[in-house]
Amino acid sequence: MATLSDIGVAAAINILSAFAFFLAFAILRIQPVNDRVYFPKWYLKGLRCSPLANGAFVSQFVNLDFRSYARFLNWMPAALQMPEPELIDHAGLDSAVYLRIYLLGLKIFVPIAFLAFTIMVPVNWTNNTLEHSGLTFSDIDKLSISNIPNGSLRFWTHLVMAYAFTFWTCYVLKREYEIVASMRLHFLASEQRRPDQFTVLVKNVPPDPDESISELVEHFFLVNHPEHYLSHQVVYNANKLSELVNEKKKIQNWLDYYQNKYERNPSKRPLLKTGFLGLWGESVDAVDFYTAKTERLSRDISLEREKITSNPKSIMAAAFVSFKTRWGAAVCAQTQQCRNPTIWLTEWAPEPRDVYWENLSIPFVFLTIRRLIVAVAFFFLTFFFVIPIAIVQSLANIESIEKALPFLKPIIEVKVIKSFIQGFLPGIALKIFLLFLPTILMIMSKFEGFISLSALERRSASRYYFFQFINVFLGSIITGTAFQQLNNFIHQSTNEIPKTIGASIPMKATFFITYIMVDGWAGVAAEILRLKPLIIYHLKNFFLVKTEKDREEAMDPGTIGFNTGEPQIQLYFLLGLVYAIVTPILLPFIIVFFALAYVVFRHQIINVYNQEYESAAAYWPDVHLRIIVALIVSQLLLMGLLSTKEAASSTPLLITLPVLTIWFHRFCKGRYEPAFVRNPLQEAMMKDTLERAREPNLNLKGFLQNAYIHPVFRSADDDKIHVAMEEWEEEPSLIATKRRSKRSTPLSSKHGGSSFSSPEANKERSKP
Amino acid sequence: MATLSDIGVAAAINILSAFAFFLAFAILRIQPVNDRVYFPKWYLKGLRCSPLANGAFVSQFVNLDFRSYARFLNWMPAALQMPEPELIDHAGLDSAVYLRIYLLGLKIFVPIAFLAFTIMVPVNWTNNTLEHSGLTFSDIDKLSISNIPNGSLRFWTHLVMAYAFTFWTCYVLKREYEIVASMRLHFLASEQRRPDQFTVLVKNVPPDPDESISELVEHFFLVNHPEHYLSHQVVYNANKLSELVNEKKKIQNWLDYYQNKYERNPSKRPLLKTGFLGLWGESVDAVDFYTAKTERLSRDISLEREKITSNPKSIMAAAFVSFKTRWGAAVCAQTQQCRNPTIWLTEWAPEPRDVYWENLSIPFVFLTIRRLIVAVAFFFLTFFFVIPIAIVQSLANIESIEKALPFLKPIIEVKVIKSFIQGFLPGIALKIFLLFLPTILMIMSKFEGFISLSALERRSASRYYFFQFINVFLGSIITGTAFQQLNNFIHQSTNEIPKTIGASIPMKATFFITYIMVDGWAGVAAEILRLKPLIIYHLKNFFLVKTEKDREEAMDPGTIGFNTGEPQIQLYFLLGLVYAIVTPILLPFIIVFFALAYVVFRHQIINVYNQEYESAAAYWPDVHLRIIVALIVSQLLLMGLLSTKEAASSTPLLITLPVLTIWFHRFCKGRYEPAFVRNPLQEAMMKDTLERAREPNLNLKGFLQNAYIHPVFRSADDDKIHVAMEEWEEEPSLIATKRRSKRSTPLSSKHGGSSFSSPEANKERSKP
Repeated sequence: MATLSDIGVAAAINILSAFAFFLAFAILRIQPVNDRVYFPKWYLKGLRCSPLANGAFVSQFVNLDFRSYARFLNWMPAALQMPEPELIDHAGLDSAVYLRIYLLGLKIFVPIAFLAFTIMVPVNWTNNTLEHSGLTFSDIDKLSISNIPNGSLRFWTHLVMAYAFTFWTCYVLKREYEIVASMRLHFLASEQRRPDQFTVLVKNVPPDPDESISELVEHFFLVNHPEHYLSHQVVYNANKLSELVNEKKKIQNWLDYYQNKYERNPSKRPLLKTGFLGLWGESVDAVDFYTAKTERLSRDISLEREKITSNPKSIMAAAFVSFKTRWGAAVCAQTQQCRNPTIWLTEWAPEPRDVYWENLSIPFVFLTIRRLIVAVAFFFLTFFFVIPIAIVQSLANIESIEKALPFLKPIIEVKVIKSFIQGFLPGIALKIFLLFLPTILMIMSKFEGFISLSALERRSASRYYFFQFINVFLGSIITGTAFQQLNNFIHQSTNEIPKTIGASIPMKATFFITYIMVDGWAGVAAEILRLKPLIIYHLKNFFLVKTEKDREEAMDPGTIGFNTGEPQIQLYFLLGLVYAIVTPILLPFIIVFFALAYVVFRHQIINVYNQEYESAAAYWPDVHLRIIVALIVSQLLLMGLLSTKEAASSTPLLITLPVLTIWFHRFCKGRYEPAFVRNPLQEAMMKDTLERAREPNLNLKGFLQNAYIHPVFRSADDDKIHVAMEEWEEEPSLIATKRRSKRSTPLSSKHGGSSFSSPEANKERSKP
Repeated sequence: MATLSDIGVAAAINILSAFAFFLAFAILRIQPVNDRVYFPKWYLKGLRCSPLANGAFVSQFVNLDFRSYARFLNWMPAALQMPEPELIDHAGLDSAVYLRIYLLGLKIFVPIAFLAFTIMVPVNWTNNTLEHSGLTFSDIDKLSISNIPNGSLRFWTHLVMAYAFTFWTCYVLKREYEIVASMRLHFLASEQRRPDQFTVLVKNVPPDPDESISELVEHFFLVNHPEHYLSHQVVYNANKLSELVNEKKKIQNWLDYYQNKYERNPSKRPLLKTGFLGLWGESVDAVDFYTAKTERLSRDISLEREKITSNPKSIMAAAFVSFKTRWGAAVCAQTQQCRNPTIWLTEWAPEPRDVYWENLSIPFVFLTIRRLIVAVAFFFLTFFFVIPIAIVQSLANIESIEKALPFLKPIIEVKVIKSFIQGFLPGIALKIFLLFLPTILMIMSKFEGFISLSALERRSASRYYFFQFINVFLGSIITGTAFQQLNNFIHQSTNEIPKTIGASIPMKATFFITYIMVDGWAGVAAEILRLKPLIIYHLKNFFLVKTEKDREEAMDPGTIGFNTGEPQIQLYFLLGLVYAIVTPILLPFIIVFFALAYVVFRHQIINVYNQEYESAAAYWPDVHLRIIVALIVSQLLLMGLLSTKEAASSTPLLITLPVLTIWFHRFCKGRYEPAFVRNPLQEAMMKDTLERAREPNLNLKGFLQNAYIHPVFRSADDDKIHVAMEEWEEEPSLIATKRRSKRSTPLSSKHGGSSFSSPEANKERSKP
């Protein structure tokens, strides 16, 4: 058990390292050469231009204004100054609400800590159970519930506190849910006209022998939404094309690299080996090699594009259908279209940049099968992830390395190296796995078939939280792998589980305090330094960048990373709620984390992170749910702990807490969740009416027609789209011909307005 | 343990008693005097008239055609003859699909029994574990899994069978779900125009200081559904009025009784004591007394009606809103109207006769609180229901009776009476409780706030099933009260629970066989005799009936009783699935139950039961879910049983079964459940278009205006409604005046068409 002074030393180390990170950041950020690393958001918004362009040569790269070094912490108040409405405008509602999660932590834990320290700590402290017990103990334990003798009446304090904390948390949660819901509604209402307000995504369009997907969609919606249907946009299966485009980009990078190299040293043409990783094989001229490769790829790309637009099979069984009014779209998104509920599925179209195009045409049956596979895979990942790592570790020990690569033996046998390998290799396998975990979870979500980036991230976040709950939280409290725990739990009685965990909670307090300081304090401080983007940017800058546009591309602003960031915060909520009653000394550490993280991430959101999509805080129900789960876990564990303390009379009182909490959750779900899922008709009608009054001659078709084109087409077809757009207004919107008898050739897409916006039609039209 | 011959004797007794019931039924049903007891459905349909009207006097009451006695079982083929489409037409889809549950039982268990007897029974039989064990055993045990030695490889047979049974059950379930869903959709599509197709129930209309509920509803829907809104109907709080009407009916019965008595014996005017239960107090002339009472009640009723229609406070915050098209109603029912998801809640209006009027105006917050209260109450009811019964039992023993009523002592001390009381009284308390259980559960559902009778019955059914599962199924396997079980389970490890239950399952087979024969065979046969309605009908007939209309009212056709009948069937599904692997000898008994019940209930549905409402088989998802639950329970228990049999290698194979079953359930839920919850727009549009083409001049407003009037008003206002209906067509549908400044007096409801259909308006209009 660590004493208070041990904790003090650890705190000092972590505070110092956090301070060091801040200092390094303060120095690096005011160097003009790093400007694009630390302020990319402003570049993306076009509000800042390169400081390299003017001024003396040296001051282009290094800041020589020494006064600015003195104010090295002034970014903190600056980060706090931007008011919330401006922040929403600047970085989107997602980011602004994300910051509110940290604030929520402060709102919950500051009053709880105050109460705990004024009431509960004195109650704990004024016992001397531990002194009489003969066990070793520290001052921290004297402050905790461990110091209260078994069966003492003082446990009533903890019981009352448990109620107080639960009610306070629920109150804050409810208020926050209310605020976020109204922020979301206000954001959606006050926002500019956006294509997704008018558009619905239709999935699982059934195949039809007589009509193409495009015709079918048009006819279906003209018949079933006759007064509201405006146009539609079919979805092309451009996965291969975008692969090719990505490859071309990579090759182009290499070409740039060698061209730069050649320009700097024109005397020698750079050579390249064509074999594996450029290590062996025939030597060729690198510039020529890559030029040829780029050209070949360009040809492939245009061929592939041709194929996509001419082949009806590359049209996926999904479409974006636009309506004349928001009301029409709201109606279509919320209703069932067809008597078979697995075809003609409609839902709100995600923002165009939020669409995850690859998943748009997975049939219903496959979706359910994929879900089953992912559920099983995730179960094994969570409970058995230790097994493959153990195998890797057993393979990566010294004996097996010596066996496999005998020539390394003399080197390995050196004592320093040997101990290094022994101490380091097993850990590295685990570390690599944990590093790749978010990616693995993301791949799982993608496989599961979500159709927007925001949904992918939300799903990954809940999986990551579950993984952390099992493997970090429970794994630290009850040592042993997750699978061993699972096995224990199955063989333990239901009321033994909270007892086992609850009883070992007070003992792990110091461990978690250290964890919070390392992961929460120093980790958050390291986030602001952005070491990896800094290095990569300078590498790219040196090797690849030729034009200002290249430099733009070399920036890597990153995103908030909801799928990893939010589960981390949730772990702190869990720790705070669990330890609030048991070992209140943990609370100040958590409060410091929330405060620090709030400032740091506010700064990052304002200056660094790029907004990939805007889901208008659609993740809040998840956040709310997880805090509720943490609350219930804390209540169950407290019940387990108290029952080992022979305070059995408290059980009936404690068991009502989770019941009330679950009820509170259901109440909140009914009261606020619809704001995050559905779109009220009243709202839609109000905006429609306003818009009709303000802009009676609005050309909505023109506004919507190219909103939902696959980004691969968008980048290349800018000019062609213009041609198509001009033709729009001349076309009358007529109901196309009805179903005909069998026709074997695919339609030439002359029927109905919608097909004009397809690349196919664009191509035809742009021909002379 | 009962031997095969014991079972044979029990079977003989039950078959004989079933046969006796059938015989009694066969004789009673062909007596003309009982015609209204055994064929009320035909009277209700107006297809049969009283046999008392013509023929010789004796043959009016007794059937003298002795040939008809010979064919006493001919109702069975007759019951089976009516084809399903005709049955749907005759008794509604609910009843027809309800019968399919019995058929489903046959479809599942006949092939399973066949497989079990050809493969598993020989495997079990050819061991002699039991003979060597030295335990007492019966032939039944020799057929069961108990006869297989621990750790035997023969368990693989059971494992394969478990898979086969699961797949077969799932296959049948899926096919049935598909058929029922398409039956429902076909029924809804082919049905006549019904008011609920066009109508949506709006709950939680927010209060408004400026406008009455009626105006508010009209304005809201005129603004938000401008092209589809037709009219609306406010809901009056007529609970007190209907109480008064019911009381008047009761008093009227007494009045009739005494008038009849007086007519039969005009020499003596019947007297009545006014005190408690007519046992003491002043004697008065009964006819005069009740005549005065009826008159007073009539006055009260008209006063109350006046009050309701003139007082705006008696208008509840709910309304039935009708639309011009089915499409408009489908849209409104499926969408969220307002940004606050707890007001302006819309849902499909239930059928007019299905509406449960009392619950129409419970605010959202109260609903969630009520739900919590009912959940907690139901938990205690299920697990602690034994406690109050035990208290009653302890009060109702001989000593306490003697203490309370000492003068009874000599009677009680008689040996026969004493043993009767001792043996009978404790049982009677339990029996009374179980008799009232469905009523208690129904009251709970009503308190919870469901707004249609069908929903009330569905909810009661699931509660009743849960209660039976805990107290009949588990309670019989592990003897002890539910609370003791709960306590055991909490203190047992998670994998011990299926083991404990699983291990005692084979031992309880004979008990359940007896249970099936008593409850399933003889009970179902008793159902057809309708002893209680028979007696009550003849009593009423003798004392109250004067006119043909009175006789009509004396009939008590009853209903299917979904809330008690369906859970009973589900218990048999559970028993069948659980014992299919363990003791297959139980299966034939279950098959006989399903076959017998199918015939009996088909007969009852055709000839007896009245259809209270038509929910178009909305209960099928519940039925499906409960069979799935039974399947999963059977799999878990088999796992527990096999693990005690040292067939541990089967666990991983068995654990995939529940996973697959749950996945199957989720697949079915996604695939078929929407057909039971939502209404596809395509369907609605199709019917609208057809109707427009067929009846272009349809007066929909006239059709809809009085559909959703509280039945209390309906019965009395028949003539007034006619007046109102005529005025309808003259009224133009104009958009009412917009919101005005403060106005303190309630509106006189002259604005908009909707208010004309209110009783208030009717009354005003019917005045000279």
